[in-house]
Amino acid sequence: MKKYKVAVVGASGAVGREVLNTLASRQFPFESLRLFSSARSAGKAVQVGAADFELEELKDDESFKGLDVVFFTSGSSVSEKHAFRAAKAGALVIDNASVFRMRPDVPLVVPEVNGATLELARGTRVVANPNCTTAQMVMALKPLHDRFRVRRVILASYQAVSGKGQKGIDEFERQVKQYARGEKLTVEAFPHPIAFNALPHIDVFQGDGFTGEEQKVMNETRKILGDESIRVVATCVRVPVVNCHSESVTIETERPVTPEQAREALRSFPGVKLLDDPATNAYPLATNVSGKDDVYVGRIRRDPSLPDGAHGLTFWVVGDNLRKGAALNAVQIAEAAVQRGLI
Amino acid sequence: MKKYKVAVVGASGAVGREVLNTLASRQFPFESLRLFSSARSAGKAVQVGAADFELEELKDDESFKGLDVVFFTSGSSVSEKHAFRAAKAGALVIDNASVFRMRPDVPLVVPEVNGATLELARGTRVVANPNCTTAQMVMALKPLHDRFRVRRVILASYQAVSGKGQKGIDEFERQVKQYARGEKLTVEAFPHPIAFNALPHIDVFQGDGFTGEEQKVMNETRKILGDESIRVVATCVRVPVVNCHSESVTIETERPVTPEQAREALRSFPGVKLLDDPATNAYPLATNVSGKDDVYVGRIRRDPSLPDGAHGLTFWVVGDNLRKGAALNAVQIAEAAVQRGLI
Repeated sequence: MKKYKVAVVGASGAVGREVLNTLASRQFPFESLRLFSSARSAGKAVQVGAADFELEELKDDESFKGLDVVFFTSGSSVSEKHAFRAAKAGALVIDNASVFRMRPDVPLVVPEVNGATLELARGTRVVANPNCTTAQMVMALKPLHDRFRVRRVILASYQAVSGKGQKGIDEFERQVKQYARGEKLTVEAFPHPIAFNALPHIDVFQGDGFTGEEQKVMNETRKILGDESIRVVATCVRVPVVNCHSESVTIETERPVTPEQAREALRSFPGVKLLDDPATNAYPLATNVSGKDDVYVGRIRRDPSLPDGAHGLTFWVVGDNLRKGAALNAVQIAEAAVQRGLI
Repeated sequence: MKKYKVAVVGASGAVGREVLNTLASRQFPFESLRLFSSARSAGKAVQVGAADFELEELKDDESFKGLDVVFFTSGSSVSEKHAFRAAKAGALVIDNASVFRMRPDVPLVVPEVNGATLELARGTRVVANPNCTTAQMVMALKPLHDRFRVRRVILASYQAVSGKGQKGIDEFERQVKQYARGEKLTVEAFPHPIAFNALPHIDVFQGDGFTGEEQKVMNETRKILGDESIRVVATCVRVPVVNCHSESVTIETERPVTPEQAREALRSFPGVKLLDDPATNAYPLATNVSGKDDVYVGRIRRDPSLPDGAHGLTFWVVGDNLRKGAALNAVQIAEAAVQRGLI
């Protein structure tokens, strides 16, 4: 079996570490593994599977020569500086940042949904990994879109602090302790206290009143589903949950759909788990889905606010934002690239 | 000035105590005040304003004779047993339970929205206080409905644990401490752990997959706005927030509406505060609205998922569920009843 020379940029961050764990747990066939980080973390050892690897500083003149796959997990400024340089040096770049996602020459890939668009990366050698909130939502939308044609999506999200990376988790845990001790909550990573709050503000506000996060969901959903006619509106909210994003999703469809037909469609879709039994209080929950690869869907109901009640649904989607929303999907892109002979 | 003989049933609960505080802080003119509770709490003293009152057990044969106003805050089973008996004994009953809200002969009142329907209570002498999630939402919807005719409402809620009463707050605080100590979370009041979770389950599941809470929002919104043609779909979710419900509300309107026109309409509506300045990170937050009487609205945006983008909006509403969502609104009903000569 062929083995690959792999690198992870941002290897000490929350997503980077999860990429490393996922490479190990899914036994991605790497021949070598380089771990890039900021100067601050360089020199530290990181365990991946059974072996130890040392973090090395990513320098401005890093050549990336000889690498087959490079995962970028450090955010847009690092990706802007290095991703296309790594691609030009011959690597396939799988980029978790948002900066290239909407470029027409960069595929934006959730393998189960639009794996075939990976072919586009034969040109640029850069593949974008979607926004976490979007990735889990399109997993639920795809089988419904195929059968019933989704025309409109209304999303309200309940997003975990881990979506802000390790500094989001640290800030939340510090605030919980401060609260327990009756101290004033200090704020650094989020715009306001996140402990015991619901913050309708993720990423930066844009001119139209939407946040960057909301715009990502609205634009990326269309691109991944390959249908520019789908209309999307999103409200993205940070909640005091450590890991896993939850989503209240309301859709309108072209063809009539019943909850039972939707359940059938979702049941047979790879990577989706149906958990929808109100009689036993069974529905997806952030605390239960954390650490799982699948995206969970439940609470599927007919939408009584539609004129005939037949052309739409409302439901609840929960996914691990560090896994399907980030690291797992990135590694699945690499696996799909291997299958397609892209690397 | 006339003074009234007042009683509060459920005076030791979260809503009951808030009714007492509100009667005191708004200087409701009471001549006497009786505090009913379960046998367990009876005998304890409760401070209301500057004076102390003793809790007395509500017995099955309590006569309610001579009372002008009785607030019921103990839930549906106590209201079912006693509310109409109190009304027949001559009191005006203001009932916080859900059991009578949809009866055609019982007005369901948010004074700023449909105060005139109080006249209906001249017959039954029973007035229903709406569901907390509904009360704050209709405060935002009313000025928009009057100017732009609301046709459809899509709600996703972020509801505080105080909505479950004192036992909800206690369970949450216990779980936070258990989490901080690394212990297993114990569950009693909620169907699953609420600490660091998002629970899409409030009240009891109904046959159609909606919860009781969601059905209340869908039905009560129409009744309070006095328009059975408004279509509503709700997803009600409990989040790890101590107090104040937040809501992501998406509406469709008959007439075109811009965010600025909506802001104008909301600004002039009594009981609503507009807080909508993304440039300074100003939007309503549960932790800031707690303890406030007004319902706060912000993050008002054009809805890009509508075909022409002109006949709808999406926005964020936060209210104190113990105040406007319960006790404040109940006392405002009593004040309106005084003004209308109902008591």
